[in-house]
Amino acid sequence: MSVIRKADAWRFDPPVPVMAGAGVVGPKEGEGPLGGEMDHICPSLHLERDSFEKAEQQMQEMAAELALRKAGLSAADIDLMLGGDLLNQIMPTCLTARKLARPFCGMFTACATSAQALSLASLAVSSGAVLHALVTAGSHTCTAERQFRYPNEYGSQKPPYSQQTATAAGALVIGGSRDTGVCITAATVGRVVDAKVTDPFQLSAAMAPAFADTLRRHLDAMGRTPGDYDLILSGDLGRHGVLLARDLLQRDGIDLSAERHRDCGLLLFGDTDSVFAGGSGAGCSASVVFGPMVEALRQGKYRRILLVATGALLSPQSNQQGESIPGIAHAVELEGGAANG
Amino acid sequence: MSVIRKADAWRFDPPVPVMAGAGVVGPKEGEGPLGGEMDHICPSLHLERDSFEKAEQQMQEMAAELALRKAGLSAADIDLMLGGDLLNQIMPTCLTARKLARPFCGMFTACATSAQALSLASLAVSSGAVLHALVTAGSHTCTAERQFRYPNEYGSQKPPYSQQTATAAGALVIGGSRDTGVCITAATVGRVVDAKVTDPFQLSAAMAPAFADTLRRHLDAMGRTPGDYDLILSGDLGRHGVLLARDLLQRDGIDLSAERHRDCGLLLFGDTDSVFAGGSGAGCSASVVFGPMVEALRQGKYRRILLVATGALLSPQSNQQGESIPGIAHAVELEGGAANG
Repeated sequence: MSVIRKADAWRFDPPVPVMAGAGVVGPKEGEGPLGGEMDHICPSLHLERDSFEKAEQQMQEMAAELALRKAGLSAADIDLMLGGDLLNQIMPTCLTARKLARPFCGMFTACATSAQALSLASLAVSSGAVLHALVTAGSHTCTAERQFRYPNEYGSQKPPYSQQTATAAGALVIGGSRDTGVCITAATVGRVVDAKVTDPFQLSAAMAPAFADTLRRHLDAMGRTPGDYDLILSGDLGRHGVLLARDLLQRDGIDLSAERHRDCGLLLFGDTDSVFAGGSGAGCSASVVFGPMVEALRQGKYRRILLVATGALLSPQSNQQGESIPGIAHAVELEGGAANG
Repeated sequence: MSVIRKADAWRFDPPVPVMAGAGVVGPKEGEGPLGGEMDHICPSLHLERDSFEKAEQQMQEMAAELALRKAGLSAADIDLMLGGDLLNQIMPTCLTARKLARPFCGMFTACATSAQALSLASLAVSSGAVLHALVTAGSHTCTAERQFRYPNEYGSQKPPYSQQTATAAGALVIGGSRDTGVCITAATVGRVVDAKVTDPFQLSAAMAPAFADTLRRHLDAMGRTPGDYDLILSGDLGRHGVLLARDLLQRDGIDLSAERHRDCGLLLFGDTDSVFAGGSGAGCSASVVFGPMVEALRQGKYRRILLVATGALLSPQSNQQGESIPGIAHAVELEGGAANG
């Protein structure tokens, strides 16, 4: 195995096998268009735990367990776990790592965490440093509301361009030597891009420039165009962010057609305004991609998908201290079917 | 370059060159025994910024700039930045990454972040995925007090076994093809170990078992004994934690003599009880190792150092919800002088 450096992109040669993935979602997400393709739908937001934070942890543990079971592995087979979430000190992930009791590195770039963890995990497998790696990411609408926004109980109004944090977790097991029909072929780690957005409800505007930057850099490095992908998946730009991102790319001469471009935040909840402009959260892209999308690749429905997970970098404190909200996006390329030779 | 997997350890063959490092500390740390060997001592805790959080960010930026300058590189030469801190959503590091505007992955395992970032950065360089990587970590006593403990103004009493978060940042530039006299030879990523400590002032007891676990795993994997190192540096176990760690290792038949074992938290502040049981914080091991220790290796004062940075995994919320405080520790082996052949 080896990693080939192409400008800022990493190409994995041979590609890194995806052994199995799992998506676990909350009740509202379960009613969305991808509900039937998720590995588990939690019937309630609290999962019978005594705090939403513990419920979030449990969802991430559940995703990890399901992915391991589908891969035919136990926790002991995992050489490295990389994961993260949105909560302070990424506690749900740290406690998931406690249960697995295997080497662990905690990750954080907000909602882009899934792709960050997957990029580094693919690097670790491709370099030969580890045989099997586990990637996890999760989020919970109630824990995010409690931490980032006004307390729910206040019933404060939200603007229509705001997004709802997904109650969701995803896990992916990669590595091994078996051809599984799905693999990771390349990754591009993103740069922090600051569009000087200061409204913590307008995160799509903070993330769209980072999405455009990373997509452009990945295409340039790999010598590809959007037409080379069956699907380009933005992390969670939402209804307004996808238009903004396409417009930004158009100015750079990159035509990202609506047919080829999907947003995990819109795929998860479908065409509804009950989540305002769409879903978001570290668990959003993780559940959508590690669950249904990996399965679609396995079934040959798609041949090549580019995930560009997006994150908005803020804490309530940084925002209250007048700091702007920069964005970041990381790209990971997945292939299915005959591509995994 | 390549990475050789030895049980849970990664051996870098050839070793990864350390181009330059820098340690930046606050005024009290500057009065400590290592003050004269730091790259910069900040005269005040607020660095003339209007919040301690912004001061923390500035220290990390300063460390990155100093390390880059010493390495003879500019930000544009950096292919990957890995870093983290203790604050919610690791904002000081995210904003440092904004300034550098290079590919960035955010890291978090509390005070073990320095060694986590260095392990993964060494892997990235060794695999050939990147040519130059920058590792940063920082912390600030006032931001940590504000976030994790009672507000300072309350003047609440602390127990003698508590530790003071260091106001410090460190940065290290690794990679390139030049023999610099200092290199990274191996790393072992730690597991989350839970000793069921629940007192947020007793973090050394939470971290000591993780330190012992990682040290033992690293020695086993590499076929080494403590005698093979000139210095084994624990991250920040403090006065009580070092005794506990030595005792735990003794039970496993590993004799970690006091002569060979030093603690970054004790080295930074020296023999004083004004910081209770010693220093801690993500910037503690980062400033001590990336600053003075890298320089000592370069000068041939030491031939081989093992950094085992330790972290206690908690948020005020996880603690208040009755969760225990697990620990983690990551090991990185550095060599100086002729070792970097």
